Amino acid sequence: MTLYFIGLGLSDEKDISVKGLEAVERCGAVYLEHYTSVLNCAKQDLEKFYGKRVILATRALVEQDAEATILKDAAEKDTAFLVIGDPFCATTHVDLYLRARKAGIACRIIHNASVISAVGVTGLQVYKFGKTTSIPFSNEQVDSPYEAMKENRKMGMHTLFLLDLDPIEGRYMTVGDAIRYLLRAALRKGDGGFKDSTLCVGCARLGAKDPIIKAGSASQLLKADFGKPVHCLIVPGQLHFVEEEALTLWKKENIQ
Amino acid sequence: MTLYFIGLGLSDEKDISVKGLEAVERCGAVYLEHYTSVLNCAKQDLEKFYGKRVILATRALVEQDAEATILKDAAEKDTAFLVIGDPFCATTHVDLYLRARKAGIACRIIHNASVISAVGVTGLQVYKFGKTTSIPFSNEQVDSPYEAMKENRKMGMHTLFLLDLDPIEGRYMTVGDAIRYLLRAALRKGDGGFKDSTLCVGCARLGAKDPIIKAGSASQLLKADFGKPVHCLIVPGQLHFVEEEALTLWKKENIQ
Repeated sequence: MTLYFIGLGLSDEKDISVKGLEAVERCGAVYLEHYTSVLNCAKQDLEKFYGKRVILATRALVEQDAEATILKDAAEKDTAFLVIGDPFCATTHVDLYLRARKAGIACRIIHNASVISAVGVTGLQVYKFGKTTSIPFSNEQVDSPYEAMKENRKMGMHTLFLLDLDPIEGRYMTVGDAIRYLLRAALRKGDGGFKDSTLCVGCARLGAKDPIIKAGSASQLLKADFGKPVHCLIVPGQLHFVEEEALTLWKKENIQ
Repeated sequence: MTLYFIGLGLSDEKDISVKGLEAVERCGAVYLEHYTSVLNCAKQDLEKFYGKRVILATRALVEQDAEATILKDAAEKDTAFLVIGDPFCATTHVDLYLRARKAGIACRIIHNASVISAVGVTGLQVYKFGKTTSIPFSNEQVDSPYEAMKENRKMGMHTLFLLDLDPIEGRYMTVGDAIRYLLRAALRKGDGGFKDSTLCVGCARLGAKDPIIKAGSASQLLKADFGKPVHCLIVPGQLHFVEEEALTLWKKENIQ
């Protein structure tokens, strides 16, 4: 019996790979991790497409109750653990993998697109991103995302900010929320590490049919509408001329 | 008419997404970028699976002759530009995208797995990777990959080394080649930034049926056999305890 860790990619039921789909069709139990990201389709769309029941896996189920659920199933029958994006971009899934291996369960990984590499579509070189950081909802006293950006910029590197979300409550941070956080953090620190004029690139729904990418100063992007989730924010470091040229395109998108 | 930039993922013809496959099937011309990475399957396997002829696109074709080939086709009919991994992890493809947009051609991106996020399978946190760097074949006087690692480590971050390859000549750098480069660079610099005892994680064929991940000191990994390409090397920075635990697993794989 095999526990399949299957990436679903970024947008809807058809972003799964052909290999991933074939694996799901072989499985006797199908779990969907439902707390680190969100698709642009409903669980029902996945169920219809797979012809299978999909069990929503909360954080508690994966982190505390896996032995009685996912791992128990995987010991008896081929089992799928579906993860939005690539399966191992969230640490918690490595933990599940390690527990499965310890329990003697064979594991197979089927990778997929992640926002970590999809940001390449902005024209900013994926190689030149430094540490990635997340901005939580409660961020009044949180310095680490701001500090990560400052460290990255010192070395000329870009910073990707992933934004907090709560799919169960339907709460999603926006590009504007992220910029307001950075402006507040810079004020609190008093070091001018982020200003109204700082160049930013905002993205929404990367990988979907209607992605939005806009570039501009922090104050320009604060006024921009990015629509539905998921959003992320990039603060670029030093720019190569091809990167400059790509950003010119996204600056135009911001003006339109 | 639309130019589709379609990621093929990491291993074989079945790593394409369902959405990507449907797009290929709609296209009147299908190009495969054939110089920044390599699949574990042949062009013929893709052709059989798609039921379409696939045109190999060399660097010269994409960078110099795109107007007379890919962009000409895309102006007349739906055209696919297939890229191994995610479409925009290589800068050169951003350039093609910009040229297509300038020519008024509609573009659509279909993302897929990239080694940049797939390295999460090692248990090292994807967020904690600093700048990614590439080691070229001719590296006797090349300092930048070594310097990138030193900068990343100063900030506690992991470094992913992508290794040079020449699919046309069938030449691929190995984990051992990368370690020998780092040992030589450290000797030349005389700063002890990389030693026989430095912890390394070597990976081969991530995303394939038979991936290999092994952890150990540089001198231990020099003796390890990783088999067929593509290989990559990671030099970890500071480790979180879950990362430590995952590496324990890959150290065992190295002993076996």
